[in-house]
Parts: sequence; structure tokens; C-alpha cells
Amino acid sequence: MSSSIAPRTSSKVQAMPASAIRKLVPFSEAAEASGVKVYHLNVGAPDIKSPDCAIDAVIKKCESMHHLSYTNSAGLIELRKGLVEKYYKKIGIDIEVSELLVEVAGSEAFAVAMQIAADPGDEIIVVEPFYTNYQTFAFLNGLTLKAVHTDIREGFKVPDISEFEKLVTPKTKAVLLCNPCNPSGKLFTKEEMLALGDFCIRHGLFLISDEVYREFCYTDEPHFSAMNIPGAEQNVILVDSVSKRYNLCGARIGVIASHNKDVMAGALKFAQSRLCPPVLGQYASIGALDTPQEYFDEVREEYIRRRDTAVEALNAMPGVFTPTPYGAFYTVAELPVDNAEAFAKWLLTEFRLDGQTVMVTPAASFYRTPGVGVNQVRIAYVLEVPELRKAMHILAEALKAYPGKTN
Amino acid sequence: MSSSIAPRTSSKVQAMPASAIRKLVPFSEAAEASGVKVYHLNVGAPDIKSPDCAIDAVIKKCESMHHLSYTNSAGLIELRKGLVEKYYKKIGIDIEVSELLVEVAGSEAFAVAMQIAADPGDEIIVVEPFYTNYQTFAFLNGLTLKAVHTDIREGFKVPDISEFEKLVTPKTKAVLLCNPCNPSGKLFTKEEMLALGDFCIRHGLFLISDEVYREFCYTDEPHFSAMNIPGAEQNVILVDSVSKRYNLCGARIGVIASHNKDVMAGALKFAQSRLCPPVLGQYASIGALDTPQEYFDEVREEYIRRRDTAVEALNAMPGVFTPTPYGAFYTVAELPVDNAEAFAKWLLTEFRLDGQTVMVTPAASFYRTPGVGVNQVRIAYVLEVPELRKAMHILAEALKAYPGKTN
Repeated sequence: MSSSIAPRTSSKVQAMPASAIRKLVPFSEAAEASGVKVYHLNVGAPDIKSPDCAIDAVIKKCESMHHLSYTNSAGLIELRKGLVEKYYKKIGIDIEVSELLVEVAGSEAFAVAMQIAADPGDEIIVVEPFYTNYQTFAFLNGLTLKAVHTDIREGFKVPDISEFEKLVTPKTKAVLLCNPCNPSGKLFTKEEMLALGDFCIRHGLFLISDEVYREFCYTDEPHFSAMNIPGAEQNVILVDSVSKRYNLCGARIGVIASHNKDVMAGALKFAQSRLCPPVLGQYASIGALDTPQEYFDEVREEYIRRRDTAVEALNAMPGVFTPTPYGAFYTVAELPVDNAEAFAKWLLTEFRLDGQTVMVTPAASFYRTPGVGVNQVRIAYVLEVPELRKAMHILAEALKAYPGKTN
Repeated sequence: MSSSIAPRTSSKVQAMPASAIRKLVPFSEAAEASGVKVYHLNVGAPDIKSPDCAIDAVIKKCESMHHLSYTNSAGLIELRKGLVEKYYKKIGIDIEVSELLVEVAGSEAFAVAMQIAADPGDEIIVVEPFYTNYQTFAFLNGLTLKAVHTDIREGFKVPDISEFEKLVTPKTKAVLLCNPCNPSGKLFTKEEMLALGDFCIRHGLFLISDEVYREFCYTDEPHFSAMNIPGAEQNVILVDSVSKRYNLCGARIGVIASHNKDVMAGALKFAQSRLCPPVLGQYASIGALDTPQEYFDEVREEYIRRRDTAVEALNAMPGVFTPTPYGAFYTVAELPVDNAEAFAKWLLTEFRLDGQTVMVTPAASFYRTPGVGVNQVRIAYVLEVPELRKAMHILAEALKAYPGKTN
């Protein structure tokens, strides 16, 4: 044992998928470093102003702060009470303070929810396309995602419940969905949610409902939360976040909520293992609870304008198709290219229009079905309309110039 | 399939250990709610003022903030560069910006480090007593901790390297230590670190060195970081945090660092899966980099006073023994009780001295060796000397009154 052997990293980390959303970042950074302007349609990081009340609350707390200490692992009681009284009650979700706790953003909330629902070797049913990090956390925890396909050409319509039934095995422990959906913009109807609730009740499955885009719905019907499915109180685990709702992505504050006491007891054990959620972000979130309704109304109108701009421009490009999304701030578009990932990389490394280019997210990793989505990208319409128009123009010109075009 | 079955939480979350440090919290909250003053010697949450430059940096950023957006998954480049130039260089740790990234506190840093080093089924050697959440994250990731014992009666002296050799199997992937040590206050000497480095190099093991208490050393020799073990560049993974260094526990900002490129590539994948570290905490951490040396000097002197107060008072209590700790702000004490956890609970639920009591952490869960530490508690000397004296007086009186005494 005298020779020196360099240690090897774990098989797990070597096989861990790199983030499809983030792995092009080095190319965009290189482009920007060389003076190229990159329009970022790749990340759901909007440019909308955070509510003044949120930022002011942080300043006020800091001005009288002696030291920045830990909070309760479940989050500041002021925040938990405020969420129940000022937010969930207002939107018609009836929960007690003991039925929620504060997480390190939606990311921690769904990672914890998946581990509460399923053991290594178990299966979770997802609706594809789905948020790619669901797969990352499934992988890290030895879980298998089985996907019900929804099709871009059908506007990502949720299929009959028989498609879910087909996937059920003794190892199935949960259904995981995002409503409205990142990346598709799909908004689940009340009827679809009731059917899924019934399915989960019948099979004794958890229903993990990621509703972080709840405030971004563009139909006349109100968002129907999984928390309001009658009879599914023991099944539903709600995943929520302030990131999108108040444009506080950097606060890293989310919520896990359930009427199921065992779920919340498990969530508390996870919460205690990482001591507490970010405290300055908790202050911002407490302040954000006083955000006036006009803020949401204005943001909603702005996103409808952006959506319409993006969808119209995309469908006007030869060979491009995108359905109209009714929620969140994404749309998935089919492009006339052989490989959308290669195209996205080419945009960053080779294509320039007057020293500008765009960044989009390849969509293949949002699907489990092999081969599906290879010619699709996710577009986050998170820029102001004039900027978005310019980005769409660049994308159109890029498609004309791209050597890997299919038609 | 028509009958309704309530879903069951996973076996993993049911078997997951509850935090020994946090599980008494409901009892202390109940005591406080009933008007009892509780002296908190249980959590490493000091009352020292955070540096003004840290809090001011947050205020300044907020005053000109448009919206609180995501940062790079690895953390703001300003923070990463600042850490390299203004902190690590100053303390003699020579790393590049690409060799560190920002984590959600030390908690995320060691959880990620353990998963980078070891696969489910693998083993990690720890020095007991150790920080109890190491075991929590080992459990969650299917890892087995094997402990080298250090004994309270020997001042937690690290034994001969042959004791480590005995534990090596083909599944051993890393050594994990905390220096200075939470909970024992043990400060590893340069010689001990070099021997451990040599051991890891010979066996091709990672050396995960948790140095979050680095600024709290009470000897004349400077802290010797694992990053400075010659020849161990590919082995060492550094875990760090601003929580204790600048008394910014609530910022939730930590660091993982390594000269090993595969380790950092793995860490980046984990970082991308949770999008970014808390941004307001990153601002506080950038500001904290300008903390003057006098701050650390004053804090160090204050902790020496507190340590001396606690150690002297503890050893003056009949049947109590604690060694002198040379780092961090904890000490482990042997008490003349049959079960320290029952005693800690009794303090919160039954014992009152003039309407006051103390909260301590039972130490058994800091050990892997069965039965060891059952009569020990961890004392965090994180109160000002006059308060600490009162807490020690209450503890002494409580021991006199406790029905479960052994002598």
C-alpha cells in the first residue's frame, strides 16, 4: 500500500446528468466576454421588478440587525403564518401553519417531496415534457421516472387517465406534475386535476403538484390547485416558491405543504438536517406578502403581451411550430433543425447578427421518451416586448443561415 | 382498484434520524411560550454582532435593486474572486477561482462532498464524536460511516494512524473530519493532519475537511488547513462556510473547494441542479470579505473568556468532567446522569430555577460506537460571560436536583 493512488469520484456523480438548461452557460459567457450581446431566452429569469415591499423589508430588517442568526428549520413563524393568512387563504387554499414549511426554493421542496414519497428503486409517473431537474433528483435518489407523453402538436393535451393506468406497477409511488407547466406552458384544467386526483386516490399514490407558476395563468378560469381536490388530502404534496410569484428568484425561498401529517413530519426531518432556510430571503418573502393585487395584474398583462409576441413570431418562421401556452412563461417550439442542442450551441459559438445572438434551451432532456424533442427548444419569454422582437428576429435569421436545417 | 388507500411515506424518510440538536426544540418552545427563560447552550448560534460591512453590503445592494435574480450556479463571480483574493490568500490557502464554488452553507457543501466521494454502499471514516448531520446525509445517500474513537478522558486526542488502517476496506472512499471539531472543540495539529493526508494518499481516499470553525482556534499555532498537506492536492475536498466566521449563520453561504478537477466538475453538476445559492446571503458574504482583522481578534478573545468560564464552571460541578477545547465554541462534558437526553428533556419540561432553565444537546448521537456518550452533552459557549455564568449556575443546581443522577 505504499504507492499513491489518486481517488476517483463516485460513479453516481460521474453518471449524474449535467443540467441541460445550464450546460450551455460557458458558451454564452464566452460570447459575452468577447463583446457579443446574447438575448437570454434560455432561463426562466424574468426582468420584472421585484415588489418594493419585498426589498424594503430586507433593508428595514438589516438596518436594525445585530447579527444574522439561524431561524427555526421550518422557517420564521412570521413567514409561515403570513403565507397561510395573507397568501394561501386569499387564493382559496385552506391550510394550517403546521401543514407547511419553508424550503430552500422550489428546488429543495420537490427534491424532498420525491424522497418522502418514494424509496430507491421506486417509480414516479411524470407528464412529459417536464422540468429537467426532476430527472436529476430522481437519479440522485435512485428513483425511476416513467412518463406519460403529451404532444406538442396537440397543444400538450393531457391524455386519458388510461395512459397513466398503463404505467402503474407495485413500485409506483407518486405522480409528479408542474401546473402551469415548465417547459410547455400547459395549464391543467380542473377536470384534468380531478381525474388525476381520483387516479392517485385509487392507487394510493402521492400527487406532487409543483405550482410555482400559479400566478401566471392566461385563461379566464382561476388556477385549480391540487390542494383543492376533494378526498385527496392525504395524497397531495404541494411544491411552491416565491421565485416566480414575486420575481424573487435569488431569494431561494420555497414551500412544501400537505395535509398529510406523516409527510410534514418527514419534511421537518429534512429541514432540520440543513438547519434553516436563507434568512434574508425569508425577510424578502415576508415583505412580499403585502404585494398589491395590481402587481400581479400588471405582470400578467405584460406576460400575455410577451407570449403573444413570441408565439406569433415563432409560428411565422418557416418550419417552426409552437402551440399557444396558457400558463408560466415558456413555450416549446419545434424547429426545422436536425438537432436543437447543436443549433443552440451554434447560436452561441458561431452565429452573430450585428454582434448579437440568442440563447435557447434544447428540449430533448424535458422528455423521457427516447428521440422525442430532439428538434425542439424551450423559449422563456422573459424579455420586454421590444427586446423579445429583436431576439425573435435574430432567431429567424439564424434559422435561415443554419447549415443543419431539415427543410 | 376502487377502494381508497392512503399513501405511505417512504421507508427512507421514516427511518431517517431526527436531528438530535433540533428535536428538543418543541420542548424549549413550549417552555418559552409559558414564560420560562431558556439559556440556549444547545445550538452553535452565537450572539456576536455580524460585521457591519456585511450587513451594509446587503442594504446597499437592495437600495439599488431592480429585481432579485438568479446568479451563476457556482455563485457570483465577485464573491468567488473575493474569496480567493481577499480571504484564502490571506490565510495561506492558494486556490484558483475555478477550484471553489459557493454552496448553500456548509450543510450543502459536506452533503455534496460525501456524494462526490462515495457511492451508495460505500464507507467513509469519521473521527468520533462528529457533527451529527454527517450521519444524516450518510444515511440519505446509502453511505456507512465507520468511526475512529477519540476519548473525552484523553482530551479527544487523535489515535495512531493504525486505528484508521484497521477500518479500511475496499469500500472505503474517504475520511471526513471537522477541524476544529464540532462537537469536541478538538483542534487537529499539523502533524495529525499530515499523517491523515499520508493515509489518504496511500489508500487513494478523499479527505473531506470541514473547516467552518477555522477562525476559532485558541492556541498560538495557526490553523493548519488540509488544503496545505503536500501531495494531497487530488485527495482534499474543503468544506467551508461564512456562518461562523462572520457570524452570518442565517446567510446560508458556504464553499466547496478542491484542486481535483473531477471533484469540481461534480460539484458544479450538483450546484446546477439547485440553480443558485441564496443571493442576498451572497451579497452579505461579499461585504464580509472586508471584515477587519480586529473583528476576528476581538471575537477570539471573547470566546477564550467564554470557554474558560464554561470549562471552569463545568469542572467545578461534582461529577462533571470536560477537557479544555482548543477550537470552535463547543465543549463536550460528561455528566453524573444515567441518560443525558432524558436530562436535557427534563431541564426543558420540569426544572426551573427562578423561572429559568438551560438547553443542552445530548451527545450520544455524535458517536457511532454504541453506548458511548450516553452521559455526555455538548455545550455551546455562545453566550456573553455574565449570561453564561447564570446558565452554568442553573445547570449546577439542576444536577443537584435531578432524580436520575448516578453519583
